[in-house]
Amino acid sequence: KIEFDAVEHPHRRFNPLTGQWILVSPHRAKRPWQGQDEQVDDSVGEAHDPDCFLCAGNTRISGDVNPDYKGTFVFNNDFAALTIDSPDAPESTDPLFVCEGARGLSRVICFSPDHSKTLPELSPNAIRGVIDTWDSQITELGNDYVWVQAFENKGAVMGCSQPHPHGQIWANSFLPNEIFRKDDNLRAYYEKHGSSLLLDYALRESQSKERTVVETEYWIAVVPYWAAWPFETMLMPKQKARRMSELNEAQKDDLALALKKLTSRYDNLFKCSFPYSMGWHYAPFFEEGENIDHWQLHALFYPPLLRSASVRKFMVGYEMLAESQRDLTAEQAAEKLRAVSDIHYREQSN
Amino acid sequence: KIEFDAVEHPHRRFNPLTGQWILVSPHRAKRPWQGQDEQVDDSVGEAHDPDCFLCAGNTRISGDVNPDYKGTFVFNNDFAALTIDSPDAPESTDPLFVCEGARGLSRVICFSPDHSKTLPELSPNAIRGVIDTWDSQITELGNDYVWVQAFENKGAVMGCSQPHPHGQIWANSFLPNEIFRKDDNLRAYYEKHGSSLLLDYALRESQSKERTVVETEYWIAVVPYWAAWPFETMLMPKQKARRMSELNEAQKDDLALALKKLTSRYDNLFKCSFPYSMGWHYAPFFEEGENIDHWQLHALFYPPLLRSASVRKFMVGYEMLAESQRDLTAEQAAEKLRAVSDIHYREQSN
Ligand SMILES: O=P(O)(O)O[C@H]1O[C@H](CO)[C@@H](O)[C@H](O)[C@H]1O
Ligand SMILES: O=P(O)(O)O[C@H]1O[C@H](CO)[C@@H](O)[C@H](O)[C@H]1O
Repeated sequence: KIEFDAVEHPHRRFNPLTGQWILVSPHRAKRPWQGQDEQVDDSVGEAHDPDCFLCAGNTRISGDVNPDYKGTFVFNNDFAALTIDSPDAPESTDPLFVCEGARGLSRVICFSPDHSKTLPELSPNAIRGVIDTWDSQITELGNDYVWVQAFENKGAVMGCSQPHPHGQIWANSFLPNEIFRKDDNLRAYYEKHGSSLLLDYALRESQSKERTVVETEYWIAVVPYWAAWPFETMLMPKQKARRMSELNEAQKDDLALALKKLTSRYDNLFKCSFPYSMGWHYAPFFEEGENIDHWQLHALFYPPLLRSASVRKFMVGYEMLAESQRDLTAEQAAEKLRAVSDIHYREQSN
Repeated sequence: KIEFDAVEHPHRRFNPLTGQWILVSPHRAKRPWQGQDEQVDDSVGEAHDPDCFLCAGNTRISGDVNPDYKGTFVFNNDFAALTIDSPDAPESTDPLFVCEGARGLSRVICFSPDHSKTLPELSPNAIRGVIDTWDSQITELGNDYVWVQAFENKGAVMGCSQPHPHGQIWANSFLPNEIFRKDDNLRAYYEKHGSSLLLDYALRESQSKERTVVETEYWIAVVPYWAAWPFETMLMPKQKARRMSELNEAQKDDLALALKKLTSRYDNLFKCSFPYSMGWHYAPFFEEGENIDHWQLHALFYPPLLRSASVRKFMVGYEMLAESQRDLTAEQAAEKLRAVSDIHYREQSN
């Protein structure tokens, strides 16, 4: 009888945050590639682009003029997917045609006035500025909305229509699917084990080191055991922090460092500006008094690249219709990310 | 007080098959696009390509020589994501590191020896041949596996590495996430209402016509009320058919017609070979005797294009982290697909 070996044998792993399985096919990385090549632009642009809607001093489509900002700059998205005053939909009793109203708003956060830089190329101090902006935006909007999704789409392949370093914030009058289901799963674990799933997990990974990509004083980034995207990572504090607003100064400074190291490793892996979508999950803004101890702040990075700057993983046919599938194990991915430097290739002196 | 209008106001719709919501932002289609352009290849190739692994008579990477096939041709994928003899993983009792064994196989189905044609360009008779191949493959593999996913990735943007018209079949020793959850939802509806959700839905849509794209004697294709992708459609029989094997000759002939019309409308919409991932869902191969009356055969089409042959919808940051979002209503999408001919632009005489 052959013994099971996770590096040789197809298997499924379970994501306890989503309740979904992932099909792992570690032997499959060997197949040849004849498909679409992504164009990854690795030219270094100018620090100011007169045609960019996000650069300081430029005029946006709305006619508004951007201030001469030095750190971050936040404005309301001129083409928001949500509006603050959308009316409620009539109540639906028909189980096949269920609809409800949705309110919210969306904002753009420019990370830096420098058009040519991306997150890993900003100074720890500038990244700390981005963290403070996320924090204050989430806190402000959390007064009015149950959910505030902060995220960044980086790279054309992730639908990003603007090379200028920026992220977005969408505030929602509802709990979106992913948060709803995570809340359920975290709560069930908390009720069963009396501890926070994500804090338990961070400490276990910090001990094992098998899937660790970056570890700093207060933070750990791992390729989660149940990762779906080839180089997916999760960045977690190693102590209780249900929301960003609960971090102290030292933890926020250290987060800037961890973010710089993690995103530098990404860029160093294929020597390109590594595309991804990333964002923050944390305790939703439930009614006053509701317990949120099952929650823990964490960032998720979903990068599509698989084998080089131009060969990506496609989550298509089988994945859309049946189940996410990956071609290397989480441990193999973590090893590759650990094998490269945590200093960005453009900032290395030699 | 403003009255709710689904064409003006952001809202959420509920997918009763997945239990997930979709955020609909109908006003957002107006925003400008500065992002990535897809390259859609619309050249008509040769009927036989000497470098193609799928053309008749050619040698594959494995060294095997394809026969001189005339209709469809099926072979085992040389780089399968699953193997038939993968050992079981040791049982995991740790809730954070859950793993299980997975067995299966994957096959490629060439739809036609003609390298230059796609599904909508095949004759109804040739499409009927594809249906018969799906049917016999699924029936054969269903003897050994609880789930058999038949699907097609079409176009480079959908990760398809081969322009030759073909689909895939992945057989699984497990119920993949999407089927598991659909089984749950269909069963709950059946227990509550005493009827099949999907048959009820097909008949309601056939009456309403609001979201209908193609309707033939036995089949209806609609942009479902809860569609996530801009031009997503679902193709359903209008009478009970829990699996493909339950269709009679007339229903299979008519399915070929419906498939030709639906995929021709897709190609006609932006005058290009419309990329998509499509596949079949139907009653899984449970143990003998288990009730499957809550199930109904249906095909799902997930096409990414949004506004033209080169501008697609990206399911990225907000969508991955929070909830699927769309920029036009299902009714608007259906109207656009109805507005074009159901005869393929390359087969129109004028
Ligand atoms: O098997 P193919 O066509 O080479 O591969 C394509 O379809 C598979 C099944 O959806 C995906 O896992 C791959 O990412 C995609 O590139
Ligand atoms: O708002 P942007 O950056 O133009 O748009 C991008 O991110 C949004 C949020 O993830 C998506 O809905 C869009 O499909 C994508 O192109």
